[in-house]
Amino acid sequence: MSNVLFDRIALIGIGLIGSSIARDIKKHGLAGEVVISSRSADTLKRAQELELGDRYVSSAADAVKGADLVVVSVPVGASAAVAAEIAGSLKQGAIVTDVGSTKASVIAQMQPHMPDYVHFIPGHPIAGTERSGPDAGFSGLFSGRWCILTPLEGTDPAALQALKDFWMALGSKIDEMDPLHHDKVLAIVSHLPQIIAYNIVGTADDLETVTESEVIKYSASGFRDFTRLAASDPTMWRDVCLHNKDAILEMLARFSEDLAYLQRAIRWGEGDKLFELFTRTRAIRRLIIEAGQDVDTPDFGRHLRDEKK
Amino acid sequence: MSNVLFDRIALIGIGLIGSSIARDIKKHGLAGEVVISSRSADTLKRAQELELGDRYVSSAADAVKGADLVVVSVPVGASAAVAAEIAGSLKQGAIVTDVGSTKASVIAQMQPHMPDYVHFIPGHPIAGTERSGPDAGFSGLFSGRWCILTPLEGTDPAALQALKDFWMALGSKIDEMDPLHHDKVLAIVSHLPQIIAYNIVGTADDLETVTESEVIKYSASGFRDFTRLAASDPTMWRDVCLHNKDAILEMLARFSEDLAYLQRAIRWGEGDKLFELFTRTRAIRRLIIEAGQDVDTPDFGRHLRDEKK
Repeated sequence: MSNVLFDRIALIGIGLIGSSIARDIKKHGLAGEVVISSRSADTLKRAQELELGDRYVSSAADAVKGADLVVVSVPVGASAAVAAEIAGSLKQGAIVTDVGSTKASVIAQMQPHMPDYVHFIPGHPIAGTERSGPDAGFSGLFSGRWCILTPLEGTDPAALQALKDFWMALGSKIDEMDPLHHDKVLAIVSHLPQIIAYNIVGTADDLETVTESEVIKYSASGFRDFTRLAASDPTMWRDVCLHNKDAILEMLARFSEDLAYLQRAIRWGEGDKLFELFTRTRAIRRLIIEAGQDVDTPDFGRHLRDEKK
Repeated sequence: MSNVLFDRIALIGIGLIGSSIARDIKKHGLAGEVVISSRSADTLKRAQELELGDRYVSSAADAVKGADLVVVSVPVGASAAVAAEIAGSLKQGAIVTDVGSTKASVIAQMQPHMPDYVHFIPGHPIAGTERSGPDAGFSGLFSGRWCILTPLEGTDPAALQALKDFWMALGSKIDEMDPLHHDKVLAIVSHLPQIIAYNIVGTADDLETVTESEVIKYSASGFRDFTRLAASDPTMWRDVCLHNKDAILEMLARFSEDLAYLQRAIRWGEGDKLFELFTRTRAIRRLIIEAGQDVDTPDFGRHLRDEKK
């Protein structure tokens, strides 16, 4: 029995996300043919060396010709340019989707270019690591993770179902959401943590009284958790900040307000307020583990990995 | 050949740190006898069930009688009370140390009580997990991690060396530091990350526009990294905040200043400033991995653990 869901899939962009999708398509035999395109010649060459697809073309317009599914996996700031480039070459009835971390901006950038004979269905798989590039991807990245689709009004139900089937074949669980609500949810669960992580690592790096080598030596006491996020792709995250500005600024304002409250409690020695917050936050951790969204091992199981060495 | 470093060791407090020390002492045969004391009857009973020591006594004063090494592993706010309780029962020439996350405050609390015939040498092993209690400890917690000692002026070199030998037998690397400098270093590498983690989890929990269940479902996109720290022992961290106030407030002020700069860059669409910071922070991550202070696996190796299930 064949697992083929699409005769031809075009992957525009082949970084962490694109190359993980490519690996899963290959592993599960979901496409008759996979065509890969990247703006970077080096990246495209590397994708070929890794045998991630069947054909490799530098032009995104060429890549999408005859494709039944087009997955755009580029930094969100490049969405408009990609949409403009591929628009004229899209096959009638093709499904065009993306994996961008912001949805309202991607829709505003891509939708005006989309011909009315294709199905444009924005999406966002909630999965990733701090690594980037085609070597960083791996099969199974999306397994057990959520993929949020933000279909526009009047989306063809059959096309939507076909896209859902694709993500489910990669092991994802599917949610549908309004684009603006998606952007607000992601601002708190993803964009704010990322910005905070970048910021604290920057603050530590700038200190005169504590040396960089001290920060590194003693990072096991908490700091290192933040550096994982702060090692993520700078281009991707610059674009996210610029393209989900309103929701991010709202979350930053709330975060700063709460931090001022905490700071004041520390200054005035209000132990009860500190204890109340520090207790409440434990419950959230338990719920995340119960929901299968993190591993239930202390320290992320770091010491277990250490022992194996 | 015997590995015994001390004829009798008294462990005051048997939580994550105390019980990990106990397990290592037993594993490596570092003591003739281990006496364990805890203020909580339940904890003491549990320590006995786990066979962490040789004798179990509810009174810290009784526990330290005849002990050559006394390790105090209690929330830093309890240091003065413990010091007052044990002072009159300490053996001549005993080494008294602690594992507290703040050093100036612990010294101020304990030193006035210490008789001049004991060696009081404050210490702080830079190791731990988000779990707490005697069941949370494990042998090897300190292996490859730094232990900072902050000896006071005039400390006996032989006693200092004996304490170093003890921590090295647990696999630790030793540093010596001035107590105030220790408190500043830890404020940035440990206390600030911890407070920020608590704060962001609190902010997320308080949102009206995004539900708790959404925060949990999509936490894999960054948020969950912070929840690990925010699951730590509330009593311990309340005490740290109250007992390293000045250094923490200084770091919080710098952090907030940097965050305001970042926030302004987002508001005004200054992509270059964002890109510069997001690039600089990557380097720190690399250095931490090179220094052996974190595992070199994407996503802390979470997906590898997932696959094993």
